[in-house]
Amino acid sequence: MIHQHTLRLATHGKGTYELTDQLAELVRASGVRRGLVNVFLRHTSASLVIYENADPSARADLLRFFEQLVPDDLTGYAHTAEGPDDLTSHLRMALTRTSEQIPIVDGRLGLGTWQGVFLFEHRHAPHRREVLVTVLGE
Amino acid sequence: MIHQHTLRLATHGKGTYELTDQLAELVRASGVRRGLVNVFLRHTSASLVIYENADPSARADLLRFFEQLVPDDLTGYAHTAEGPDDLTSHLRMALTRTSEQIPIVDGRLGLGTWQGVFLFEHRHAPHRREVLVTVLGE
Amino acid sequence: MIHQHTLRLATHGKGTYELTDQLAELVRASGVRRGLVNVFLRHTSASLVIYENADPSARADLLRFFEQLVPDDLTGYAHTAEGPDDLTSHLRMALTRTSEQIPIVDGRLGLGTWQGVFLFEHRHAPHRREVLVTVLGE
Repeated sequence: MIHQHTLRLATHGKGTYELTDQLAELVRASGVRRGLVNVFLRHTSASLVIYENADPSARADLLRFFEQLVPDDLTGYAHTAEGPDDLTSHLRMALTRTSEQIPIVDGRLGLGTWQGVFLFEHRHAPHRREVLVTVLGE
Repeated sequence: MIHQHTLRLATHGKGTYELTDQLAELVRASGVRRGLVNVFLRHTSASLVIYENADPSARADLLRFFEQLVPDDLTGYAHTAEGPDDLTSHLRMALTRTSEQIPIVDGRLGLGTWQGVFLFEHRHAPHRREVLVTVLGE
Repeated sequence: MIHQHTLRLATHGKGTYELTDQLAELVRASGVRRGLVNVFLRHTSASLVIYENADPSARADLLRFFEQLVPDDLTGYAHTAEGPDDLTSHLRMALTRTSEQIPIVDGRLGLGTWQGVFLFEHRHAPHRREVLVTVLGE
């Protein structure tokens, strides 16, 4: 069995946006008991990450760290047509993930206790984002 | 055909722990000749990485590099309730991988000559880790 | 349905090499209408990344950034038998991706408008690289 669905999200600035509940519901609705779900982000200036979902400070620190690792005031770079958060968005995306694959066990997402799935938005301006969800299994 | 299995590992401090042989055995036992295996780590303070498995110095250097890239003495961060290797474990996980997908070719893992699959433990204290292995194929 | 194919590429130095058209053709030829394609690189000194494919300056900047993040003149490291771009190739690989998973929607790659799939070569010397492509679906 293969089910596909597109999630549409409106982001309002840099940060993490949790998708876990929507994914869990898509898996439940699919009827798949054992298999995999592929979560695929169709953009290059945002990314996905499975991350600690209990303490919001861990996510605030993730943002802080990436602002330091790939600072928006990078100099000596060429791809800046769309502003100072253009290239850095691509770089932060390349350092994290475009897709996640999560096992489905007994009809549910096989995530660990502290794992959530997040869209990691790297742009300041509001954006509309599409996430393709593909459920495979039996 | 879909087969699922949970690998349980005891880690004893930061470092890399190879899973390749256990994965190869699970693939062999599944009887799948062509397909994919998904390896999924159910934790946020450890990660997975496919890495050079011939020369142990390459793995020692991986650790050394991550100690520099995400130093445990980071200042200005909030998520430190579980000690100085708490947040940095999450960050190192986000920079590497939570799951790996490996093709199955002729009944065997399709890894290259120098590729091994490693659990990358980011915590000092001993931990019990769970890895969900899902084999899909024919 | 499961189809497997090996792409062989000759690289000529550090840089990005686009695979999107070859992947699209393999998906088309497979006849799969809905499913996933797994793209797996069988090497530890090169990696894969889905990245902005419209403006070549974005890819030049990706290289520049990784030269800064993991500089070839790293000191204090042990795994240098194959020269100064040996260890740094492994580290850059670990920070990006060994495989990508892309949904197949209506018989085509479900990539976003600006997404391309690239082999990211981290070695100076020419190399022959193998990419295993596995198409699963219906």
